[in-house]
Amino acid sequence: MPEELLNITKSVPTPFLLVEEKIVRKNINRIHDYADRHGFAVRPHIKTHKSLKIARLQLVSGAVGLAVAKVREAEVMARLGPVDITVAYPAVGPTRTEHLAKLSLKQNIRVAVDSEYVLNELGSAAIKHGTCIGILVIFDAGLGRCGTADPGQIVKLAQHAKTHPGLGFDGIQMYLGHLYGDAAGNPQSFERINRLWEPVYEALCTAGLEPKTVSSGSTPSLENTHLIRHITEIRVGTAVLNDYFVLKFGHCDRKDCAARVVATVISDVAPGRVIIDAGSKALSAKQLLRHENLEMGFIVEYPDAGITRLHEEHGWVDVSHCNPAPRIGERLSIVPVNVSLCVNLYDHFYLITRSGRLQKELVDARGCLV
Amino acid sequence: MPEELLNITKSVPTPFLLVEEKIVRKNINRIHDYADRHGFAVRPHIKTHKSLKIARLQLVSGAVGLAVAKVREAEVMARLGPVDITVAYPAVGPTRTEHLAKLSLKQNIRVAVDSEYVLNELGSAAIKHGTCIGILVIFDAGLGRCGTADPGQIVKLAQHAKTHPGLGFDGIQMYLGHLYGDAAGNPQSFERINRLWEPVYEALCTAGLEPKTVSSGSTPSLENTHLIRHITEIRVGTAVLNDYFVLKFGHCDRKDCAARVVATVISDVAPGRVIIDAGSKALSAKQLLRHENLEMGFIVEYPDAGITRLHEEHGWVDVSHCNPAPRIGERLSIVPVNVSLCVNLYDHFYLITRSGRLQKELVDARGCLV
Repeated sequence: MPEELLNITKSVPTPFLLVEEKIVRKNINRIHDYADRHGFAVRPHIKTHKSLKIARLQLVSGAVGLAVAKVREAEVMARLGPVDITVAYPAVGPTRTEHLAKLSLKQNIRVAVDSEYVLNELGSAAIKHGTCIGILVIFDAGLGRCGTADPGQIVKLAQHAKTHPGLGFDGIQMYLGHLYGDAAGNPQSFERINRLWEPVYEALCTAGLEPKTVSSGSTPSLENTHLIRHITEIRVGTAVLNDYFVLKFGHCDRKDCAARVVATVISDVAPGRVIIDAGSKALSAKQLLRHENLEMGFIVEYPDAGITRLHEEHGWVDVSHCNPAPRIGERLSIVPVNVSLCVNLYDHFYLITRSGRLQKELVDARGCLV
Repeated sequence: MPEELLNITKSVPTPFLLVEEKIVRKNINRIHDYADRHGFAVRPHIKTHKSLKIARLQLVSGAVGLAVAKVREAEVMARLGPVDITVAYPAVGPTRTEHLAKLSLKQNIRVAVDSEYVLNELGSAAIKHGTCIGILVIFDAGLGRCGTADPGQIVKLAQHAKTHPGLGFDGIQMYLGHLYGDAAGNPQSFERINRLWEPVYEALCTAGLEPKTVSSGSTPSLENTHLIRHITEIRVGTAVLNDYFVLKFGHCDRKDCAARVVATVISDVAPGRVIIDAGSKALSAKQLLRHENLEMGFIVEYPDAGITRLHEEHGWVDVSHCNPAPRIGERLSIVPVNVSLCVNLYDHFYLITRSGRLQKELVDARGCLV
């Protein structure tokens, strides 16, 4: 680690999560620069950082509101005041619908939906509480997670939302999680999506259901979102912090990675290998790629080292290509494979502020699963 | 889920963690039955459940003390009173050694060590606080994590511990995490370990350092521990709850899995696939095997279904072999791949007591990373 960072954090026991505010702000600005060029609204997805502090930074930088995955995350973010919130996730079950209906009395709430089932549950809760909940219908852009690409089905759901007294139809949500690496930069990937998407858009317009909002997300393909037609809004999750997945596929530079896990070498007994005190409880068990050799994080100070295996509390680091190699007691800072999973393991993170001070900050929405 | 479990838990929003006390007790009894047959002490490793409630059950069932990985876990477990604690992990860094020295004024503390570096740090802290810390030297039984199999090096560390005024030499710790599947049941695996281990044991005895404690751990090979010579104690982590890894390799039955994540189907739009509200933030990102097709959990109610992929908040379930298939709104209970990683994601778990009541319990040591 740079001497300055090492000094300011040396009294914090490892493993801990370090976030640099300067990089966070630079990443936020980069997102807004892109969005401004294309007239997109920016709606940060807080599932990555789960922090009121960072959400506040995003809102003062011009975000139109926030996206969350879970209802409890929405409740935590509502502590910021009457911020506009999209729950980018089908809210199934009475706890979720009840809480959202209550929340919508205080702030503008939209929910992403792909079924009549959820529309009916949400609508009933909204009527019970005398409120109205906005609906985004989920368009499946090719990932095959939630949603559909069937124009008839999407029109039917939109119509149902529009005519339900407790609901409103606001538009369409899509997620491009299947585009990374070359696919994220290839115009043909986006043309393929447009070929699915245009018939949906046209069917909606023909039915008098022109979407006010068309929201797209996914960090790797983020800065090519303009290649999809009719987009109005980008949901931005990982891009505020970045991680080894984004870095490995060339969608950011090392200096854009705002969050790192700081770990200590706890064993250097075997030649060519050291063990660190960050395992899968500190970095998450996320592999970089499913079927490839494991890479479980990127060590900033030793780019030639490889984290080849994680147990719960131990990380194996291959240091056979490092000269010199890290020694017992040494601190290393690691860009995690998936920063959102990693942040969710910590109750706190340590922020290096713009003025270079160290501040302990809460991961306010950690563990919000409902 | 069985009607009874479904009824008693229906007001708890998903995803949540369910633990059945009856199964926990049965698993604890099975461990003690085995240990009693071979004269082994039982030292449960609380990294799996991180719960004072379950640790108490283990202690009243005859455990001689507890094992922890992290110093903060030791501090949480010390709330149970002056219980004997082994920190089965090299305690590197001044925060760890300071806290352990303080803790050792109130309870018997042993630490597993594989370096002079940690012996010196721990010893200095012990002297500073006028205490004495017991040392287990880590023998590497073949996993290649911490420790060494070099008799000379182990004798040197043991001698150092014995002669240091702040330390004492208590014995040897080993971990058999490399034995699972066929290897965990094959006597040859254990003979291979004995061939490494006997020279170490003999060298220690020759040097007048006969180990009082020889502690072995790892659930898959647990009930063959007696095939290793001179063992005095078994450290038991996962076996109290069991998980899909243990189940898949034939080391327990379905009815021995005490912990499950209860999830809800949130989308059934696509034929042959449903999406559940348990992703890698609810189940962990742990794959069953590194390079195989993904299996991210076992669905008790649909043994023919497969969890083939997890995003942070979404689980893909292949239901093409299920007839009928689960539908939107339905609850499923899932045996996680690695229960220790899974428990660490939750602030609470829901315990079905022996009398069939539902109790919300704290995961007391969740997120203890230091």
